[in-house]
Amino acid sequence: MVAGIIGATGYAGAELTRLLSGHPKTDRLILSSVSFEGEKIENIYPNFLGRISLPLLKAEDVIAGSDVVFSALPHAVGEPFALSCMEKKIHFIDLSADFRFDDDEDTYNAWYGKNYRFPDLHKKSIYGLPEMNRQMIKDEASKGSVIIGNPGCYPTGATLGILPVMSSSVYDSSYPIIVDSVSGTSGGGREPSRSFHYSECADSVAPYKVASHRHSPEISRNIAVISKRNGTESPKVIFTPHLAPMNRGILSTIYIPLSQNCRVTPDKIEEKTNEFQKLYEDFYKDEPFVRVLPKGVYAATNRVRQSNYCDICVQIDINGTTLIVATAIDNMVKGAAGQAIQNMNILFGFDETLGLNAIPMLF
Amino acid sequence: MVAGIIGATGYAGAELTRLLSGHPKTDRLILSSVSFEGEKIENIYPNFLGRISLPLLKAEDVIAGSDVVFSALPHAVGEPFALSCMEKKIHFIDLSADFRFDDDEDTYNAWYGKNYRFPDLHKKSIYGLPEMNRQMIKDEASKGSVIIGNPGCYPTGATLGILPVMSSSVYDSSYPIIVDSVSGTSGGGREPSRSFHYSECADSVAPYKVASHRHSPEISRNIAVISKRNGTESPKVIFTPHLAPMNRGILSTIYIPLSQNCRVTPDKIEEKTNEFQKLYEDFYKDEPFVRVLPKGVYAATNRVRQSNYCDICVQIDINGTTLIVATAIDNMVKGAAGQAIQNMNILFGFDETLGLNAIPMLF
Amino acid sequence: MVAGIIGATGYAGAELTRLLSGHPKTDRLILSSVSFEGEKIENIYPNFLGRISLPLLKAEDVIAGSDVVFSALPHAVGEPFALSCMEKKIHFIDLSADFRFDDDEDTYNAWYGKNYRFPDLHKKSIYGLPEMNRQMIKDEASKGSVIIGNPGCYPTGATLGILPVMSSSVYDSSYPIIVDSVSGTSGGGREPSRSFHYSECADSVAPYKVASHRHSPEISRNIAVISKRNGTESPKVIFTPHLAPMNRGILSTIYIPLSQNCRVTPDKIEEKTNEFQKLYEDFYKDEPFVRVLPKGVYAATNRVRQSNYCDICVQIDINGTTLIVATAIDNMVKGAAGQAIQNMNILFGFDETLGLNAIPMLF
Amino acid sequence: MVAGIIGATGYAGAELTRLLSGHPKTDRLILSSVSFEGEKIENIYPNFLGRISLPLLKAEDVIAGSDVVFSALPHAVGEPFALSCMEKKIHFIDLSADFRFDDDEDTYNAWYGKNYRFPDLHKKSIYGLPEMNRQMIKDEASKGSVIIGNPGCYPTGATLGILPVMSSSVYDSSYPIIVDSVSGTSGGGREPSRSFHYSECADSVAPYKVASHRHSPEISRNIAVISKRNGTESPKVIFTPHLAPMNRGILSTIYIPLSQNCRVTPDKIEEKTNEFQKLYEDFYKDEPFVRVLPKGVYAATNRVRQSNYCDICVQIDINGTTLIVATAIDNMVKGAAGQAIQNMNILFGFDETLGLNAIPMLF
Repeated sequence: MVAGIIGATGYAGAELTRLLSGHPKTDRLILSSVSFEGEKIENIYPNFLGRISLPLLKAEDVIAGSDVVFSALPHAVGEPFALSCMEKKIHFIDLSADFRFDDDEDTYNAWYGKNYRFPDLHKKSIYGLPEMNRQMIKDEASKGSVIIGNPGCYPTGATLGILPVMSSSVYDSSYPIIVDSVSGTSGGGREPSRSFHYSECADSVAPYKVASHRHSPEISRNIAVISKRNGTESPKVIFTPHLAPMNRGILSTIYIPLSQNCRVTPDKIEEKTNEFQKLYEDFYKDEPFVRVLPKGVYAATNRVRQSNYCDICVQIDINGTTLIVATAIDNMVKGAAGQAIQNMNILFGFDETLGLNAIPMLF
Repeated sequence: MVAGIIGATGYAGAELTRLLSGHPKTDRLILSSVSFEGEKIENIYPNFLGRISLPLLKAEDVIAGSDVVFSALPHAVGEPFALSCMEKKIHFIDLSADFRFDDDEDTYNAWYGKNYRFPDLHKKSIYGLPEMNRQMIKDEASKGSVIIGNPGCYPTGATLGILPVMSSSVYDSSYPIIVDSVSGTSGGGREPSRSFHYSECADSVAPYKVASHRHSPEISRNIAVISKRNGTESPKVIFTPHLAPMNRGILSTIYIPLSQNCRVTPDKIEEKTNEFQKLYEDFYKDEPFVRVLPKGVYAATNRVRQSNYCDICVQIDINGTTLIVATAIDNMVKGAAGQAIQNMNILFGFDETLGLNAIPMLF
Repeated sequence: MVAGIIGATGYAGAELTRLLSGHPKTDRLILSSVSFEGEKIENIYPNFLGRISLPLLKAEDVIAGSDVVFSALPHAVGEPFALSCMEKKIHFIDLSADFRFDDDEDTYNAWYGKNYRFPDLHKKSIYGLPEMNRQMIKDEASKGSVIIGNPGCYPTGATLGILPVMSSSVYDSSYPIIVDSVSGTSGGGREPSRSFHYSECADSVAPYKVASHRHSPEISRNIAVISKRNGTESPKVIFTPHLAPMNRGILSTIYIPLSQNCRVTPDKIEEKTNEFQKLYEDFYKDEPFVRVLPKGVYAATNRVRQSNYCDICVQIDINGTTLIVATAIDNMVKGAAGQAIQNMNILFGFDETLGLNAIPMLF
Repeated sequence: MVAGIIGATGYAGAELTRLLSGHPKTDRLILSSVSFEGEKIENIYPNFLGRISLPLLKAEDVIAGSDVVFSALPHAVGEPFALSCMEKKIHFIDLSADFRFDDDEDTYNAWYGKNYRFPDLHKKSIYGLPEMNRQMIKDEASKGSVIIGNPGCYPTGATLGILPVMSSSVYDSSYPIIVDSVSGTSGGGREPSRSFHYSECADSVAPYKVASHRHSPEISRNIAVISKRNGTESPKVIFTPHLAPMNRGILSTIYIPLSQNCRVTPDKIEEKTNEFQKLYEDFYKDEPFVRVLPKGVYAATNRVRQSNYCDICVQIDINGTTLIVATAIDNMVKGAAGQAIQNMNILFGFDETLGLNAIPMLF
């Protein structure tokens, strides 16, 4: 099988290149880059020397020669390529935000400042969080070519932490769920800027885009969709991103207010924590990439480094009113390229873990 | 004036030594150390070579020769020295938790597993957060020698972020305030351990002691005291500490649920944010060490590095229901040694900023 | 094939476990640990959860059940296990220094302070730097079981940088070769200590064990052996290790004095640099794990991260008298576990790259 | 006294601003910036908020109002301002390379690609390394206004490590001195670029500009000048810079070949090391900012952080042929702004340590 990557020289594109190079079903890769067209990928990423040597072509060349296309372009430029793929009847997996909001153009427009160029494409695209939409992806793939809106990095870690708990008897939708996340720097991409200049972000932690990050509506939408499926009321979500001095990883600490009948007195906190531990373990027992950690082990970004895992730990707070969930992902893998490949595996009916079997490196 | 430091070789003790060496009113320092008695401080901290050369004596020698005593000992061992200081009628500033809970021995016992050895001492000790208790410190100092329970690092950043908002018309006490904090490694002290082993904590972020950190009851108590003073009901507090790969600094992101009459529709968020911006600016306008940042500037730990500042920024969330406050402190200065010196300055009637005038180093 | 790892819970042992888990020829692993006997490896390294679940047994159990044994024990304790393996006629690959000095017990004793317990074992052991001793390893393996002394991390990077140049017409043996190396922290192992305490080693670079590091005699010995093979005089070596705030990697900058006839005037520096570029490229053209970088690309530890590569760049200095070579390795892979597996592959006649095909992660 | 800073918004300019704000003799600062003219410095550096509030003016305004002018401009643009200062008869301290080469326009041109615009200015400028040229600075200041070429960061650490040893009986000038240096990222300045993009330089060490860094000729010139003063022959110098993931600091490891009569057999290495220890201690005994560390303590960049110190340690190598010297400086202080202030203190006859009394922060 030939896999194509449009926008291969950004960090997500390069990570796709690295991971797909080891995927047993992709015999060949075709890459494109606007910035570096005509050069070779290993000159942009000398870490690839001796292993990957591929020319950087035009997006059109990628589509023409591929059996599946990944787009790692910035927002608002990839729709025409999605259209071409649909016409050519091959799957299109988009790592930008363009296909994350289905046909909700208003939300997309409100947060990304653009309208859909081809609204019809968005009617059949699927939000590619497998733990949430796996069956839908499979069903659509059985009918023909599919556009996948690959989830944002923060929404992946946040949604996986909240998914199991969305049932009316457990949470209190009258108060917002709070998602407090800390990201490494690779999420900021390859382009140098003051915010990611070593001397200004090393040895420091700070929030950014408070109450204004574009992943807010994506998390809220996910929660709303899940609530609706479960026939429960959807809570509001408050999301605050922070930047920490690490290369990879997102740690999300999530505060979920419990419904009255679920709240406990201090002496029952351990018992209630155990209940939620079991709820999470059961919920994710068949998921290949979600690890509900044993009690006493906390989610940490270095325990998922380079892997497609989302690690989760749960704990009732000392007041007995709130479930505290922490999730850790590698933002470049489960938060971007790895999840895109997981989606490819589902679309093609491959074993979902193909090409994603790297064991996390602690350091 | 002679200042004494008991337990000078831990990180807080060494930071006291460094800062007091530059204090214009302390002509001389006397240091003690249990672990390194008989050695010299500059051999333990070669960064002091050529600037500070002092023998490490016994705690008794420190008390005998000093006009004020700082204790940077671990918890539960400093009470006898506090007693000696009271008998000698000199101020005792304790950086451990021993005197942070006034006469509430139950809470201290519940979280620190010890009883008070000299309960009477705790009846007159003062919790030394100047922005909360300055007048009390002054009043007691005018009557004689005082024991100061210097605040914990996390409670300092958390309390300063919440203080201005504790009035019934603003917050909703029926739901907990959430304090999500990220600390640098120096808070873990000088003793090597797996948690602070470079290869295991570098390039990673993780929560720790979720729903079980000893600073939880201290933050809760502070909120309760302030609420009581304001005649309002006290909200519960949920506190989650995280470790990030940086040497110094604590960034606390605080979520304060607004009362019904304070909540706003999305179109009024900016207006409401401006109101709180002004509320915070007014509240802290005379505080020498609290900087309410201009709108658009976020609190960041590298902007307060090596200084006694607490930087604060505020923002209403996108749902209009919650005030998001972020505070940044240097955990070794405002979170420990600097605040202790600020307390000394208050006790002696000095200008509160004496010896604490370092301008933050961005990098 | 069953691979055994004695001392599996140190960093080198854990890295062996991680890498061998993905090796296509090892169907099963057996692990031992003195410190954690009876526990399971995934509890010591939670990053392995869901992927590797193995009990920690006794060393004897490892030897009894394995077809090849890796020892990641500290120095001076592994000889009896080597003996057992020889008796059982299985290969023994030792990551400690015990078998790095062949039968030169004096040097071993001078630097490690121990005598050989079983001197005969050292007569047939082989120093396992494949680029230097591949044929010898193959030859001995064809005769029976072999003991491999897996090279030290610094000597690996240093020797590979010097190997191609050891011919009398090129270097000047009257002056020492200087090897100036910078290592990440994982080389210091898993045991917490002041030197690797985050707050004391982060954001800092310093030399350590100047003129006293145990890898000095190993580098010198390698140079002497190669010189002798080439019939040239052996230069002295000066080696200085430094610690830098990074998890993995060793960058070695090597200064090789050129012989009189090889020195050039400033106008010929580029030309001479090109000659050495070609000399290095030719020398390593068939090596699967050495990458002589294209001109203008410098060796950097993040370009070899998690891989078994040694990257090399060369340049004549501005005076025309010295060849400057820089090499970069991942100290845990090519500098330890990866190289050990490379040796296993050679011993068993496997493709040398089996299980070692990870593409370097830039970040 | 009014101090002026031209180019105040780069890192060196901001560090000058920070340090001069605490200088007891500078009552007022006047700042200029081309990039941010019309703005205020505290908006560019919010860490200054509440402490430094100054408008960014034109360079001409700075010169008109100041009693001494510091220029932190890039190379090749500051000469006209130097000329203005000379005409106004005030001292001009230049942190760029423009006045580091005295009247040796050829070397400046060869490495910086520019000619001198006002060659006469360079005839009376002084290279401002106080430990090398203090008397010259004093003498010239006694005659009138002076232009100081403040040394480069690498040359400062390198020259201070070599200075004491430049006497014919000790070193062997037939072989080059090797200076292998590792720098933090702040040396790269404030402008974002790929090389200093967090994700690409964190967790990695690499050489750069091998045999081509502009500080090479400056180090060589210093060695030549000192040799000439001592009537000895000047050795060549090989200099290799590296980048390490730390904010501040330069660690230079220097290899000085010993003359035949100075070389020792292995049994005399400790004795010879002690001799050099004493030689260095004696040489620097009156220097306020050079600390020859006690035996057994190595130079480390975190032990000089934020201070104007240069720490030095010495050791004879295991072959007895070479002196290994390691020096550590804070590249922003002794390597830039601090040394500039030290020069100001000398020019005005102030105590040389005024405004430079910060005690190093270990972390």
